[in-house]
Amino acid sequence: MPQPFSFHLLNSDGAARRGEFVTPHGKVQTPAFMPVGTQATVKGLMPDDVRATGAEIVLGNTYHLMLRPGAERIAALGGLHKFMNWPMPILTDSGGFQVMSLSGLRKVDERAVTFRSHLDGAMVELTPERAIEIQMLLGADIAMQLDECLKLPAKRDEISRAMQLSLRWAERSKRAFEATARDGHALFGIVQGGDDLTLREESARALTAMGFHGYAIGGLAVGEPQDVMLRIVAATAPMLPADHPRYLMGVGTPHDLIEAVARGIDMFDCVLPTRNGRHGMAFTRYGAINLANARHANDSRPLDAESPHPVARTYSRAYLHHLTKANEMLGAVLLSTVNLAYYQTLMAGMREAIAGARFEEFRDQTSAQWAQGDLPAVEAGVVSSGSLG
Amino acid sequence: MPQPFSFHLLNSDGAARRGEFVTPHGKVQTPAFMPVGTQATVKGLMPDDVRATGAEIVLGNTYHLMLRPGAERIAALGGLHKFMNWPMPILTDSGGFQVMSLSGLRKVDERAVTFRSHLDGAMVELTPERAIEIQMLLGADIAMQLDECLKLPAKRDEISRAMQLSLRWAERSKRAFEATARDGHALFGIVQGGDDLTLREESARALTAMGFHGYAIGGLAVGEPQDVMLRIVAATAPMLPADHPRYLMGVGTPHDLIEAVARGIDMFDCVLPTRNGRHGMAFTRYGAINLANARHANDSRPLDAESPHPVARTYSRAYLHHLTKANEMLGAVLLSTVNLAYYQTLMAGMREAIAGARFEEFRDQTSAQWAQGDLPAVEAGVVSSGSLG
Repeated sequence: MPQPFSFHLLNSDGAARRGEFVTPHGKVQTPAFMPVGTQATVKGLMPDDVRATGAEIVLGNTYHLMLRPGAERIAALGGLHKFMNWPMPILTDSGGFQVMSLSGLRKVDERAVTFRSHLDGAMVELTPERAIEIQMLLGADIAMQLDECLKLPAKRDEISRAMQLSLRWAERSKRAFEATARDGHALFGIVQGGDDLTLREESARALTAMGFHGYAIGGLAVGEPQDVMLRIVAATAPMLPADHPRYLMGVGTPHDLIEAVARGIDMFDCVLPTRNGRHGMAFTRYGAINLANARHANDSRPLDAESPHPVARTYSRAYLHHLTKANEMLGAVLLSTVNLAYYQTLMAGMREAIAGARFEEFRDQTSAQWAQGDLPAVEAGVVSSGSLG
Repeated sequence: MPQPFSFHLLNSDGAARRGEFVTPHGKVQTPAFMPVGTQATVKGLMPDDVRATGAEIVLGNTYHLMLRPGAERIAALGGLHKFMNWPMPILTDSGGFQVMSLSGLRKVDERAVTFRSHLDGAMVELTPERAIEIQMLLGADIAMQLDECLKLPAKRDEISRAMQLSLRWAERSKRAFEATARDGHALFGIVQGGDDLTLREESARALTAMGFHGYAIGGLAVGEPQDVMLRIVAATAPMLPADHPRYLMGVGTPHDLIEAVARGIDMFDCVLPTRNGRHGMAFTRYGAINLANARHANDSRPLDAESPHPVARTYSRAYLHHLTKANEMLGAVLLSTVNLAYYQTLMAGMREAIAGARFEEFRDQTSAQWAQGDLPAVEAGVVSSGSLG
C-alpha cells in the first residue's frame, strides 16, 4: 500500500516553515522547489540528472500532456511516472494557467473553459471534472483544482468574478477527486483574488472550509511588481491552515523564493532555472551570471568552485561561454543543471536555517552575497593555480 | 611521463583486425568508433554519458575550433581535454574536409588553403604547418595531416592534382609535427586518390615511405555509392603497413562499419549516430528505426530490451516518439545516447568476434538481424507484461 498524503510541520522560524509531506511516490522536504517537466520532460535533462540536482518532486503540465500525447495514452502506458522514468513524486497543475497563456482563443463559462489548442487548432473543453480525470489518468501524486487565472492588472469586478467561479470549480474539483482518486493522492485548492486582499481572504476562507490537502496561492507572478506579489503572499499565507502545505504557483527568482519562504510558503515551481539555462544564464551564489558575456571567454574558473554540484564546480566559464555562443545543446543542458542545482541548494540552505532557528541570518547573508555580485573577470593564465578548477 | 603512441595488432580474422593503440591519454581498443565532438562537445551529451556508451576516444574538428573559440584560447585554458572535460584520447582532423564542406569561398594553392569563415565571413588561411600547430595547441593525441579533399565524382586530372598536393602537404605536416609535437602524440597521413586505384596506390606508397603513426583513407563517403567506397577500401587497406592503424574518415552507417572492418579498417568517425539521433532516428540491432513514425505512439516497449545500455532498455518507444514529435531536447539526448551506445556495442561485438576467429559469422548474423527489420508495432495494454520494460 502506498503511503497516503500527509504533511508534517517540523519547525517554524518566524513565518518561515520547515516540514515534509508524504506521497505515494515518496517524501518531499519543504520548503521545496519543483522543476517544471512541461511535456513529460525537464527540458534536456535525464531524470537521474534531475534527481542529482536534489529535486524530490517535479511538476507536469496538464494542458500540454492532455493535448500531446494525451492523458488516456499516458494512462495506458502505465502513467506519467513510468512514461517519463521519474519514480519520485509528481504534482500536476490543472491546465487553467496555460489555457490563459498559450491558447489563442478561449471562452470561460460556468461549466468549462473552452479553448483552441496551440498545436492543431482543435477546440478543446476543460471542465473541473475533466481536469481531475486527466490528472488521475496521469497518476499525479498531487492534483490541482481547475481555476481561472487572470493577468494583472485587472478590474476588481473581473477579479471577483474569476475568484468566485474558481471557488465553485474548487467544489466541483473536490467532488470529482473524491469520487475517483486512488488512496494517497492529494488535491490542492487554489486561492485567487488578484491583488485585492479582501477577495484573497474570501477565497482562502471558503477553500479552507471545503478542506483540501494543501493550498496554493494562484494568480501571482502574472505581471505585478515583486512588492505587490510579496504583500499578497504575506497577507494570504496566514489565512491558510498551518497544518497543510502552502504552494506559491509559478514563482520565481531565487530572491522571490527566499522572500516567500520568509512569509510562510512551502512549495514553488518555476521554469526560470531551465528556461534561463537555455539562454546562457546561470543562477549562482554570486547572483545571475550571463555566460554570453565576452568577459567569460578566457576565464578558466568554474561558476562556483564551492558548489555541491559537480557541473558547477567542473566546467570553466570559458567553456560555458563557448557553448552558449556556439548555441550548443550541451550549454543548455549544463546551465539548466547548474541552475536547478542552485535552486535546490538554496532550498536546502533555507530548510537547514529554519531547523537551526537562523533563517533571518541565512536570508541576510544570501541576499548580501547576491548583492555583492559575480567574481571579477579573470584571464586564463593569470589566475593562481589554486583557483583553477 | 605519458605513454608514447603505439599500435598493437592483437588478432586477425581474414582481413579484419583487432588491436589497440596507446596514447598519452589512454588506450583505445580497435576496431574503434570515435563519436564526433565538433565544437568541443558531442552534441547534447555530458562527457560521462559519452564514456558510458563505451567510447574510448572522441574526434574534435580543427576547422570549428580554430574559428571558435580559437586554438590559442583553448591552449591557454589548458587544452581541449580539459576544456571539454574529456580526459580520454582525442583525435583531431586537420580542418581540410570542413573547409571544403562549410566555407562558401575557398582558394587552394601550393602554400595554403584560404577560405571565408562561415561564422563571420573573415578570410582565414590554413597551411599544413598551421594545421599542425593548431592541433598541438588543442593537445590532440592524434593529429591529421592537412589534405585537399574533393567531392566525388571528379575528373581524374583533378583527383590526381589534389592527391599530389596532399602528398606534398603530408611532408610539410610531418616536418612541422616533428619540430613541435610533444612526446607520445601521433600524426596520421591521409591516402587520397578518389575512386582511382592507381592514384590510391601512388598515394599509399608515398605516405608509407614518409612514415606516419597511422594511415587514414580520406576522400570517401563524399557522394560515391557504397560499393565504390568499399571497393576502394578493399584495395587500399592492404597497401598500408599492417603494424599501423588504418582509419576510414567520416564513415559511416553500421553496415558501412562492419563491411569496412571486413576489409581491414581499424578506426572510424561519423556524425550519423548523433545527427540522426537529433532527428528522431535510432540505430539498433533491428536496423534503423524512425521514432517520428506514428506506429510507436502507443508502444510501451523499449527500443531494445537486451541492449547493454540502460537508455535503450528503459525508455518506451511511445515516450521517445512523444519527445520526437514535441521536438524536445531530451529526445535528441536520449536517441544520440542510444545510437552511440549501439555503435559501440557493434564495435565491441566485432572485436570479440575477431578475437574468437568468427568475424564472418558475426557479420552474417548482424546483417541478417538488420535485414529482418524492426519488431512489429504493438499497442500499449496488449503486450505481455514480460516485454514491458
